[in-house]
Amino acid sequence: MNQQAKTSAQELLASLYPSSLMVVGASADPGKRGYQAVQALVTEGFQGRIYPVNPRLEQLLGLTCYPEIAAVPGAPELALVCTPAASLPEVLDACGRKGVKTAVVLASGFAEVGAAGQALQNLSLAVARNWGLRLIGPNTSGVFNMHAAMNLVGYRDLRPGPLGILSQSGNMALSLVTEGTLQLHSGFSSYIGVGNASDLAFHDYLDYFLLDQGTGALAAYIEGLDAGQAFLQAARQFTASKPLVVYKSGRSASGQKAAKSHTGALAGNYQVARGVMRQAGVVLVNQPDYLLPVAEALATQPLVKGGRVAVLADGGGHATIAADALDSLGLPLAQLSAASQKALAACLPATASLTNPIDVAGATDTDPEVFARCAEILLADPGVDQLLLVGLFGGYALRFDPQLLIAERQTALQLADLARASGKPLLVHSLYALYKPEPLALLVEEGFPVFSSIEVAVAAVQALTDYSAYRFREATDDYLTGEGEASRRALKILDGARFEGRSALLEPEAKQLLKAFEVQLPEELWLRSREDLQQLDAAWLTQPLAMKLVSQDILHKSDAGGVELNLLGLEDLDAAWQRIELSAAKYAADAKLQGCLLVPMASNQATEVILGVTRDSQYGPLLMFGLGGIFVEVLEDVVFRALPLSRADAWDMLAGIRSAKVLEGVRGQPPVDKSALVELMLKVSALVTAHPEIAEMDLNPVRCYREGYKVLDARVLLNTQRATSSSALEKLELLPELVH
Amino acid sequence: MNQQAKTSAQELLASLYPSSLMVVGASADPGKRGYQAVQALVTEGFQGRIYPVNPRLEQLLGLTCYPEIAAVPGAPELALVCTPAASLPEVLDACGRKGVKTAVVLASGFAEVGAAGQALQNLSLAVARNWGLRLIGPNTSGVFNMHAAMNLVGYRDLRPGPLGILSQSGNMALSLVTEGTLQLHSGFSSYIGVGNASDLAFHDYLDYFLLDQGTGALAAYIEGLDAGQAFLQAARQFTASKPLVVYKSGRSASGQKAAKSHTGALAGNYQVARGVMRQAGVVLVNQPDYLLPVAEALATQPLVKGGRVAVLADGGGHATIAADALDSLGLPLAQLSAASQKALAACLPATASLTNPIDVAGATDTDPEVFARCAEILLADPGVDQLLLVGLFGGYALRFDPQLLIAERQTALQLADLARASGKPLLVHSLYALYKPEPLALLVEEGFPVFSSIEVAVAAVQALTDYSAYRFREATDDYLTGEGEASRRALKILDGARFEGRSALLEPEAKQLLKAFEVQLPEELWLRSREDLQQLDAAWLTQPLAMKLVSQDILHKSDAGGVELNLLGLEDLDAAWQRIELSAAKYAADAKLQGCLLVPMASNQATEVILGVTRDSQYGPLLMFGLGGIFVEVLEDVVFRALPLSRADAWDMLAGIRSAKVLEGVRGQPPVDKSALVELMLKVSALVTAHPEIAEMDLNPVRCYREGYKVLDARVLLNTQRATSSSALEKLELLPELVH
Repeated sequence: MNQQAKTSAQELLASLYPSSLMVVGASADPGKRGYQAVQALVTEGFQGRIYPVNPRLEQLLGLTCYPEIAAVPGAPELALVCTPAASLPEVLDACGRKGVKTAVVLASGFAEVGAAGQALQNLSLAVARNWGLRLIGPNTSGVFNMHAAMNLVGYRDLRPGPLGILSQSGNMALSLVTEGTLQLHSGFSSYIGVGNASDLAFHDYLDYFLLDQGTGALAAYIEGLDAGQAFLQAARQFTASKPLVVYKSGRSASGQKAAKSHTGALAGNYQVARGVMRQAGVVLVNQPDYLLPVAEALATQPLVKGGRVAVLADGGGHATIAADALDSLGLPLAQLSAASQKALAACLPATASLTNPIDVAGATDTDPEVFARCAEILLADPGVDQLLLVGLFGGYALRFDPQLLIAERQTALQLADLARASGKPLLVHSLYALYKPEPLALLVEEGFPVFSSIEVAVAAVQALTDYSAYRFREATDDYLTGEGEASRRALKILDGARFEGRSALLEPEAKQLLKAFEVQLPEELWLRSREDLQQLDAAWLTQPLAMKLVSQDILHKSDAGGVELNLLGLEDLDAAWQRIELSAAKYAADAKLQGCLLVPMASNQATEVILGVTRDSQYGPLLMFGLGGIFVEVLEDVVFRALPLSRADAWDMLAGIRSAKVLEGVRGQPPVDKSALVELMLKVSALVTAHPEIAEMDLNPVRCYREGYKVLDARVLLNTQRATSSSALEKLELLPELVH
Repeated sequence: MNQQAKTSAQELLASLYPSSLMVVGASADPGKRGYQAVQALVTEGFQGRIYPVNPRLEQLLGLTCYPEIAAVPGAPELALVCTPAASLPEVLDACGRKGVKTAVVLASGFAEVGAAGQALQNLSLAVARNWGLRLIGPNTSGVFNMHAAMNLVGYRDLRPGPLGILSQSGNMALSLVTEGTLQLHSGFSSYIGVGNASDLAFHDYLDYFLLDQGTGALAAYIEGLDAGQAFLQAARQFTASKPLVVYKSGRSASGQKAAKSHTGALAGNYQVARGVMRQAGVVLVNQPDYLLPVAEALATQPLVKGGRVAVLADGGGHATIAADALDSLGLPLAQLSAASQKALAACLPATASLTNPIDVAGATDTDPEVFARCAEILLADPGVDQLLLVGLFGGYALRFDPQLLIAERQTALQLADLARASGKPLLVHSLYALYKPEPLALLVEEGFPVFSSIEVAVAAVQALTDYSAYRFREATDDYLTGEGEASRRALKILDGARFEGRSALLEPEAKQLLKAFEVQLPEELWLRSREDLQQLDAAWLTQPLAMKLVSQDILHKSDAGGVELNLLGLEDLDAAWQRIELSAAKYAADAKLQGCLLVPMASNQATEVILGVTRDSQYGPLLMFGLGGIFVEVLEDVVFRALPLSRADAWDMLAGIRSAKVLEGVRGQPPVDKSALVELMLKVSALVTAHPEIAEMDLNPVRCYREGYKVLDARVLLNTQRATSSSALEKLELLPELVH
């Protein structure tokens, strides 16, 4: 992160490990937050000084109360503000004057209730800014930091541990914390309720959790992001060293912007969020119930070489369900070595299944330690990346014989030792997890996740696999940037069109733009008038051609009858030209016709894909990739990434569409030259990143061959407001050229 | 069910509500099932007589023991057999002699361990059959019937209730029962562990649960079915009055049969099971964790008019997640009437959200009864089919103020009364569900399901919607059957080919077969020799034609170069004929060429679909439906149903493919005439149902127009073994005709 972000995060860190804090609006009413917070601080052993502020109280829970903020001794790093909305500007002013660094503002009644609230929020923020005071909230459900024994939320029975929580909904945070308290989990580090995010926002909090040594992984509930690009940047930095698990809600929101381009229209909120978050190394879960257990697995287990899972089960049912769940996520069952199978055979009965999933066939019912012997074999197998134990473990004493408890405890410790020594993850499912029996509690204490659902355990396997792959690939990943000469040529074309007040490039211009970045295009000829047909040489007259109208006023050529295919010879071409002119005139009488493009008919022995660029209000410039035709228009099988795009991102996009196997060549088509397509994507990324003048772009279709590709059509829309090019200096140099 | 099945089910019912039962192999060792069962019977208050059998015990838990089966008084209806595998034939013989009706056999070591075990299983079955004794198992995890206080499994803390469990895995049953015990659930009726199903099998147990008045809904865990057709028949009967929820495992099994036809190859296990079970009214869940809560909702809630859900939430986060979850399953949020919104406004604060999902915005924090007032309004709205409450309900006393408990209890009872009075389902999610607080326990007691996961609650909404739709449509559904004359003509064609020892029909024969059932086919002409081309009249010579090779030895015409398109005039046709003959000779030198078919080129302005028939080893004849081309070959977007097919089944198939919207007409294609397509499907169903001689059939492609369709190609494979036609008598009458 940059220096400013780092300073800001360090300040927040200091505020959330405060040596002293103020509770403004402390209360003697047990139903009030101003009481609950003080009570939690006192009873849970907060080590710093606590200053309750309330003009009508002298003492609260054994603490001295202060009549006003100014009366508090020293300069507490943190203030919890429990007073009503209207008081906020005054309270913040007093806090700022006092030297408070961060205020946690609980009151609601701000931007979320309309214009008057928004004005109050703005005023409050201005006051805070004046003092350099940072705000969490307003309208936050609160904050806790269990590693500082500082619980300002009033949630009960919290244990400290590695799991951070960041949530845009207080109730969702409550759900997570309740789940973490009732079930076997390894405990929490900090929680921050984002609230209205008038000042500090998601990306600031990511920076905090990144610096916080008490946090091993972060679980975040996100409804919407105002500063999407800042979030992505912070997320990239975060995931480079810690796992970030996100549940993104608001997925059903639809029909947002009425974009002019194809790509824009397809940029549905969730699909975009999914793409750009994956790109930033975020693990997305599809259900909120998965947030905590998946984060816990990532917080506690090592990175993995791959997703080859060994399943160790004490019965066929759970083994089968685990295999199904792995299969449905595309995770491979590990192939065990012959040596492993032989070793398993030696410690299991004849009825056991020795191929993965391993079913011990009752061998553990009387001797749970058989699990440890099997686990040792499986973890030592070089073909096994992760070990998943499913079934009844932890419940043998409950189910079969109380005396088995000793052996189960012993086995739990052995399993933990074996897994640690192997450097491979161990994930344990047990149908007894909700009973929280001692052997399972031991496993959690030793740093291994325990799951009550096989599906969730398997989602954790996938998360470990994906996140590890991301971490390993980040090390070697690279980008393409627009180098000087290419950008200079591109800018000339862009500025030419903008100088004429146009909001779109002509097709030949769009193609020239791409050519500047060495994109492969079909040979083509732009004839300005029908008479130019007479000048065509033999090469153009003896092969089948396509003819396409060029007009700055007609964006959708096909709709205007502006495309003719399979034309051979002068007579054909001339007739086509006339038809196009007639159709265009009928379609838009005032349209300025600027001739036609001639292009040799391209081979059909190809797979068509679409690349599109749009600028998203949240996440900035995005690249969309999809297959042509019905795949995009009917199946909406597209994938998005934020720009700039790395080479690994591009490969990930190709693999990310549901119909990815079409790229391998189906129904007689040759396979697509993926390397070439990846290079094209990187060139588009470089072009668009260097030129913010480009608002939207469709390369549709791009015909992909066994070797190489051809961009058959290109549409480029321009920003109508005057944007600053990243190469602003060059633009100034070039402008005179265009003007003269 | 038929009389035999009914008698069998009644006998099983009598056995599982026994007036007396025997425990063969009773034991004094608390670790043994022969002890646990007797203990559970005694302590849980089984009202019948209990006869432990063990030659080495005189007394067990206060009961007299008997040295041998013969010594037991009277004729107990049920025997629990806990002795080892080898003893089984002898034990069953003694049970049979004693007049026992049903034996539950726990021992393993039978068919599941190989040939010797299989032999022992067969012998045991023969012994049992000799006495008319029915077997549950062997290798079953056991049986309980909580309504008879008869717990032979040893699971703890079971409560009686409406949920039946049928499971092919003991551990899965244990999972379900543990879940039902630890969480808020309404209790169990009977459990039956299917085991090896040597005698009684899934369909018998369905019949039992159907008759059992204690069972409101059945949750079943199924790995594989031996008698799929019997299961489907029993399931259809079951679901006509009670809900059946199934988790089908073994979904990753792949690459089974190497079928010759397209359809056969696509009949992947799970896709087939999914289709035929849906057709039988079964609710399939994708995760085993969903089995119990979904079954509970179905057992306790009324049938619904539709899936329009009102979501009532006490916070934005849960409201949003519920809306997302509903959206992802395609379930609509109810549109509230203006009157409802006005009424809600009157009892909620200004910051509340009055459009669905309703967010009470904290109004319930201090007064939970606001929920009841809102629920009353929502349940009364005619646009609302189901009410889903999400958030913290039941936990207000825990979270905010212990004094709220009284109001929460009151609210729970009010909600129950309101929902009952409205006749609409009420489903309650609470993040406090796992705490089992009193208000939520009250709701369950009152017969309303409580969920700890919003996703599961929404799956229950979907199950209620789907199952109700099934129940309502079943009442008016109809079938098409092959009437006499059509079948007679079809049989003539089939027997002609079989008489010649062929395993496939020629294309013209296949089309004649379809024509007999009034299927729409393109006009066509079968010319036996090239010379016949000279006889063509003007109509055939002045339109573009397709020419297709006819040869009983060449199934795949295209591969053999046997298809030529767009032929116009005699010269074209003649040249094409020669090319086809040459290609065919190169492809298969010995092939018998039987001329060519001429067909007018069909319009491309159509959507191509595929219909296929295969005979599945588990489920019998199946119909497959899919879109042509890439949809089938790449996306495998197909749907299966068992034959015979009802009209409603056919409509359900059209709606069941993922790309169903292609049928509405995309990319310039007209919409498909769905009614005509449905009729075609019913005709195929009637044809295949009447003629078991048909092994497989592909109608590919079927070109669908705005009005009507054309079957462009048809392939019919025949059973090579001599099958009995359902119209066997007619066949006998017709055979002479074919022979002379």
